[in-house]
Amino acid sequence: MRARLEATYLVRSDARDVEERARAIAVEQSVEMPIAPIADDFVRSQIVGRVEGISERQDRLFEIRISLAAETVGRDPGQLLNMLFGNTSLHEDVELADVALPTDLMEDLGGPRHGLHELRRRVGAPARALTSSPLKPQGLPPAGLARLAADFAQAGIDYIKDDHGLADQVYSPFAARLESVMAALQTVEQRSGRAARYVPSLSGDLDTMRSQIAAAKEASVDTVMVAPMVAGVSNFHRLVRENPTVAFVAHPTMAGAPRIAPPLLLGKLFRILGADAVIFPNYGGRFGYSPDICRALARAALDERDGLRPAVPVPAGGMRTDRVAGMLDFYGADVMLLIGGALLEAREHLREATAAFVAAVHRHPYG
Amino acid sequence: MRARLEATYLVRSDARDVEERARAIAVEQSVEMPIAPIADDFVRSQIVGRVEGISERQDRLFEIRISLAAETVGRDPGQLLNMLFGNTSLHEDVELADVALPTDLMEDLGGPRHGLHELRRRVGAPARALTSSPLKPQGLPPAGLARLAADFAQAGIDYIKDDHGLADQVYSPFAARLESVMAALQTVEQRSGRAARYVPSLSGDLDTMRSQIAAAKEASVDTVMVAPMVAGVSNFHRLVRENPTVAFVAHPTMAGAPRIAPPLLLGKLFRILGADAVIFPNYGGRFGYSPDICRALARAALDERDGLRPAVPVPAGGMRTDRVAGMLDFYGADVMLLIGGALLEAREHLREATAAFVAAVHRHPYG
Repeated sequence: MRARLEATYLVRSDARDVEERARAIAVEQSVEMPIAPIADDFVRSQIVGRVEGISERQDRLFEIRISLAAETVGRDPGQLLNMLFGNTSLHEDVELADVALPTDLMEDLGGPRHGLHELRRRVGAPARALTSSPLKPQGLPPAGLARLAADFAQAGIDYIKDDHGLADQVYSPFAARLESVMAALQTVEQRSGRAARYVPSLSGDLDTMRSQIAAAKEASVDTVMVAPMVAGVSNFHRLVRENPTVAFVAHPTMAGAPRIAPPLLLGKLFRILGADAVIFPNYGGRFGYSPDICRALARAALDERDGLRPAVPVPAGGMRTDRVAGMLDFYGADVMLLIGGALLEAREHLREATAAFVAAVHRHPYG
Repeated sequence: MRARLEATYLVRSDARDVEERARAIAVEQSVEMPIAPIADDFVRSQIVGRVEGISERQDRLFEIRISLAAETVGRDPGQLLNMLFGNTSLHEDVELADVALPTDLMEDLGGPRHGLHELRRRVGAPARALTSSPLKPQGLPPAGLARLAADFAQAGIDYIKDDHGLADQVYSPFAARLESVMAALQTVEQRSGRAARYVPSLSGDLDTMRSQIAAAKEASVDTVMVAPMVAGVSNFHRLVRENPTVAFVAHPTMAGAPRIAPPLLLGKLFRILGADAVIFPNYGGRFGYSPDICRALARAALDERDGLRPAVPVPAGGMRTDRVAGMLDFYGADVMLLIGGALLEAREHLREATAAFVAAVHRHPYG
């Protein structure tokens, strides 16, 4: 048998019921049937989930640790999610808080191919924080998005990404957008030497994403964005394995709700599956993550103890240039700051507003 | 422009803030930036989400209706989820309650290829409820699962499905399980004439699921199970389109948590994407769905007003034979009852216990 994996759940429960709840989760996430009638020794001793520990975190909130046989997961990311939280996700009073995977499973899944250091190297920024801005709003034609991209690039943005709402719509098909944006960025590079990276957003089923990524590579793109919880984590991982030269930015759409702790899902699991950078909602923006959650998420993305390359944390969601200094004090230099709407509000002064954002990141006294 | 799609959200909010919350959701789910700097007329008039109505459902709980341009979705199921709930899923006080899709999008997505009537026809049961039992626990070798399948078939079960934890594990690889179970069912059919259907569970990325479905078809299987929220809805839909002779059972693993109302996600959306049957946690079992939710879910799956074939509701999760009469009174005949663990508890009397379940369904005085 391989080493077991261990999941930690936070469960709201009365103290007198918590042992029964723990056993029920161990059963639900493994054999999914009463234990008594199971005659098979291997199933009883290895496959049935084991309650490894229960501790009270707060009044009526318990931390329950359960170990599962690694054989139940095999090597498939989708089956990993299924075994960790599949049916238990249907219980509203349970959160999946953390997971410890066996080393061989981590190595098999592989983590980022590129990670922080390569994303820095590609834009010639070995030490400072990175900058990013999104192409939006959707509904603009490719030429409109390309003009935006040119402005961002002129102002010195490192990574220019599609808004996650951009897919393959009639008003801006993926192929036409790719061509227009890359042409605009090449013009800026020839004139000013500023070489921004375009990060197109992939969508659709696995084959559709494959043809989009092939077109992107053909157009010299080396970084793409995927939403793992929409694409399916197995398909996200497959794209990572099939495209070793491409860096992947993970978007959190549909990932915030499933009661999996954000540091675990966005910071740890997306990274283990190969995300080189992970976008998440920063504290104090449009979403409800706390500073503690954001700090834990960034640490999980960067943590070097697990032998994987560090993924770049990308806090976003209603950020503004006047918050740059505070964010860099909070996160340090190992971060990519993503500002969009606040820059677009400057309208005809977009380039100046963007340059101010870039300058704030470049000039920051990293401690 | 095509007809717009309309999403209904339930939002916990103070009355004085609710209009602002509604506008914020309309923006988040469309252009995802401040409206003021948007200069493009098409984007302002068509692409920005519109608040169509706000009504108070309970104290501090509001129903907000927002319409979106169908062009933002195109034809892709993943992009549909992304536009309906992507970033808003990150807000803990918002639930996606319902969706009305334009007729042409419904027709494009297509709904079930087979549905209730064909699943009945295949097992020669034109009027009564259908029966189903799962192969479990995982950890058993293929021969052990095949013996279970033979017992269920002998006892007259219509559809024998893999437990959703069964994937492609070393102790029971997909191919070996398929071969053993189908051989066992063929033996039963030759001896007794009882022809149960085997419903293997697909897992992995799109290509892996494709090879599993090809092997299943080669072995004369015509019904399979997929977990759309693990596979990714676009990939689920692709499999449905690529395999018009195969019926699809949708499993709710990872589908209960994302704060999308279960009647909408499991009953309506899975069906629109092609599920011929939808498994869901029944009231009074191991999960927390209420009778009202279960009734609404079954109605959404069966509703004939939208021009799609009806999908079979499959209530499950801790059901027992002594609940069969009550469930059939509640759901009527248009249902598939799934009982597993309670039958396995009978151990060496599994076949008799299963026969009693089957008899209870066959003998029920459908009203």
